[in-house]
Amino acid sequence: MGFIAARLRLCVALGINHHRLTAPSLKRFYMASKTQVHPMEITFLGTASAVPSSTRSHSCLSLRIGSDVWLFDCGEGTQRQLQRSVVKMGRINRIFLTHLHGDHIFGVTPLLAGLLNGSGGVTEGEEDPRQFLDVNNPAIEIYGPLGTRAYIRSSLTHTYTTLGSAYVVHELRFPDDPKTGDFTNLRRHRSESPSGRNIQQVDGLWRDILTDGRISVSAAPIQHSVPCVGYVVNEAPLPGKVDPQKYIPELKRTNTPMKVMRDIQEGKRVKLNDGTILEGPQNRPGRKLVILGDTYDPSPIEPLALDAHLLIHEATNAHLPGVDSRTKEEDTYESIEARTKSRGHSTPQMAGAFAKRIRARTLILNHFSTKYAADEDGDDEAKLIMDTIRGQAAGIADCEVICARDFLSHTVVVPAD
Amino acid sequence: MGFIAARLRLCVALGINHHRLTAPSLKRFYMASKTQVHPMEITFLGTASAVPSSTRSHSCLSLRIGSDVWLFDCGEGTQRQLQRSVVKMGRINRIFLTHLHGDHIFGVTPLLAGLLNGSGGVTEGEEDPRQFLDVNNPAIEIYGPLGTRAYIRSSLTHTYTTLGSAYVVHELRFPDDPKTGDFTNLRRHRSESPSGRNIQQVDGLWRDILTDGRISVSAAPIQHSVPCVGYVVNEAPLPGKVDPQKYIPELKRTNTPMKVMRDIQEGKRVKLNDGTILEGPQNRPGRKLVILGDTYDPSPIEPLALDAHLLIHEATNAHLPGVDSRTKEEDTYESIEARTKSRGHSTPQMAGAFAKRIRARTLILNHFSTKYAADEDGDDEAKLIMDTIRGQAAGIADCEVICARDFLSHTVVVPAD
Repeated sequence: MGFIAARLRLCVALGINHHRLTAPSLKRFYMASKTQVHPMEITFLGTASAVPSSTRSHSCLSLRIGSDVWLFDCGEGTQRQLQRSVVKMGRINRIFLTHLHGDHIFGVTPLLAGLLNGSGGVTEGEEDPRQFLDVNNPAIEIYGPLGTRAYIRSSLTHTYTTLGSAYVVHELRFPDDPKTGDFTNLRRHRSESPSGRNIQQVDGLWRDILTDGRISVSAAPIQHSVPCVGYVVNEAPLPGKVDPQKYIPELKRTNTPMKVMRDIQEGKRVKLNDGTILEGPQNRPGRKLVILGDTYDPSPIEPLALDAHLLIHEATNAHLPGVDSRTKEEDTYESIEARTKSRGHSTPQMAGAFAKRIRARTLILNHFSTKYAADEDGDDEAKLIMDTIRGQAAGIADCEVICARDFLSHTVVVPAD
Repeated sequence: MGFIAARLRLCVALGINHHRLTAPSLKRFYMASKTQVHPMEITFLGTASAVPSSTRSHSCLSLRIGSDVWLFDCGEGTQRQLQRSVVKMGRINRIFLTHLHGDHIFGVTPLLAGLLNGSGGVTEGEEDPRQFLDVNNPAIEIYGPLGTRAYIRSSLTHTYTTLGSAYVVHELRFPDDPKTGDFTNLRRHRSESPSGRNIQQVDGLWRDILTDGRISVSAAPIQHSVPCVGYVVNEAPLPGKVDPQKYIPELKRTNTPMKVMRDIQEGKRVKLNDGTILEGPQNRPGRKLVILGDTYDPSPIEPLALDAHLLIHEATNAHLPGVDSRTKEEDTYESIEARTKSRGHSTPQMAGAFAKRIRARTLILNHFSTKYAADEDGDDEAKLIMDTIRGQAAGIADCEVICARDFLSHTVVVPAD
């Protein structure tokens, strides 16, 4: 039985909503399956910068880990993009916001309303069962900078939204931010859990803002025009690969029960029936995913991001002479880079350089100007432009480079080495 | 030269943005073309209730009058629906909100950002030219109930949105609402014009909240689970149809210059060269459009809505035994109507009855439960369901009945009689 199925069946057996598993119960369950490697799959739901186009929706990507789905940013229209994608909406239990620009967060309140039965109301004299929800048991956790709580609270309050389950907002506070408070005079919405934390930086980082069994999440500031963060998803070390040729003959020779293979698979030292000691294989590093918001310089996150298996980095603007007919004669790479930086953004070359610095294995470019149509529809010009953008990053990055497009899925595999 | 082209050319000639035409200049211009009949076209951009589906987006419809485009409601994703439609986004200069439920307004701030160059920011040390906008010259006027101003202001403020043009919010205040104030402690956003009015009811109605040359808009409360309004768009009387057979021979006979036909077309009395008096044709009533938000009882708007050329009325839920396989055995029309009303909504029969009461010429049903897919994709079951819904309303309405679907356009013609 696979991990996903196992967890779901456990939930059904225990009569619990899998979304409501508390951290300790999750941890116990992950422990029971710790020799398993959870599927990790990214699906891009929106890859546009600022304004959507016919081929790109506003910023959002999903990360499936086992049966959980986490979103990173949530631009307008995320709800409908999810409906059109392979992502299971009902599995979303965490949303990580990189910054509060509207093209990254306008979809979060509509999504809460859609997921948590929040649309519509009842007439006077009718009783709305949704008012009796348990705020101490939030179905969705949201992480974001100061103002996330105020934004969601005011959106829900002004639109008379009543949710059928609770949500909680944890804010990543910058050194200049107030350490406490909610940044709004509005009272807590009745669907908002009071357990939202205000997480302070330590040594310029927010380490382990979330530890959930075998997965932890850390964050760090990255440079943009407004406070912005990048997230690092860390998987705990994975058991090494067991070479059966090395162990099975020994077990047979000594008539040792095969069940010790489980300990070997977990990397333990086992004693065979004849006293021989066998060492399980050494652990392999778990996968590391670095998911950045908009930035013209992500270097503050470097200490957390080294040796990432996957880096997702924006590449809003590019200089494409001879490829993009809209290129102006007076433009140079330097002038485009300067203009891009002045808006808080990056070029493909800048993304490639950061991928190289952190020794990323794969770089996915994301968050493209509306000028750059996605190439999935076979448009030759769009394809050439995206190929060139990819090449500009790859020429520097020294790793695999992919250009994101809406609905692209990418599985993060555990490297063989 | 048609009216639209004429107005555009005038704008170009005068070097003015046609959106910035002030009311008096618009009036003068409309006067100059008052024998023309402006095209009036409705385009549905979203026809879903509460939650979108693959065939229906969140509530929004556009009304094109001449070259202006007005939106009624603006649910999530309106911006992208507009991109896919025949509607010219750049012509939008007014947005009318019926109520503040999220499925009707979550798209308004993203649309402002998209239309008015509002996405993204600049880094420290850079100067954002958008900060120097003229707040006394708003490009977009928004009408809605109390809270509209607070909602938009807080969305823009929390998302650090800087707009390149100003907007203004006029609120329709109910008798129990505070007469003044903005319903928020947030300071006015720097893109928000201070000229927003708080419009009080007189005799239970908001008459002539806007008069714009040959068009005026009035509003009235309608019953829903939260404060909700319906809008009535009134066209001033139109010149009667001129029968050339009646006039031309007389002009020829008396050797009167043909240019008097212009006066005749405007319904004036003219004196021919031989002293004969000719009367121009009597004016015909202008078109009247009644556009309702969510409601279980729109009767307060009846005095404004009588003899509407077009009524747009919601029909969220229907009882469809033998047609919709999801119908429960214990359901009756009465039980469905009671449940629908308890949520603040209507059935097709209720919409039909109101159409009959106001003697509407055409009824368009709108705002369907997510259960009812639009039928444009040739799905037989969806088609049968929508046909049945239409039939349920038509059986009572005694007028033409149409079911809205996304991207449906409907031209409101001046009746021949």
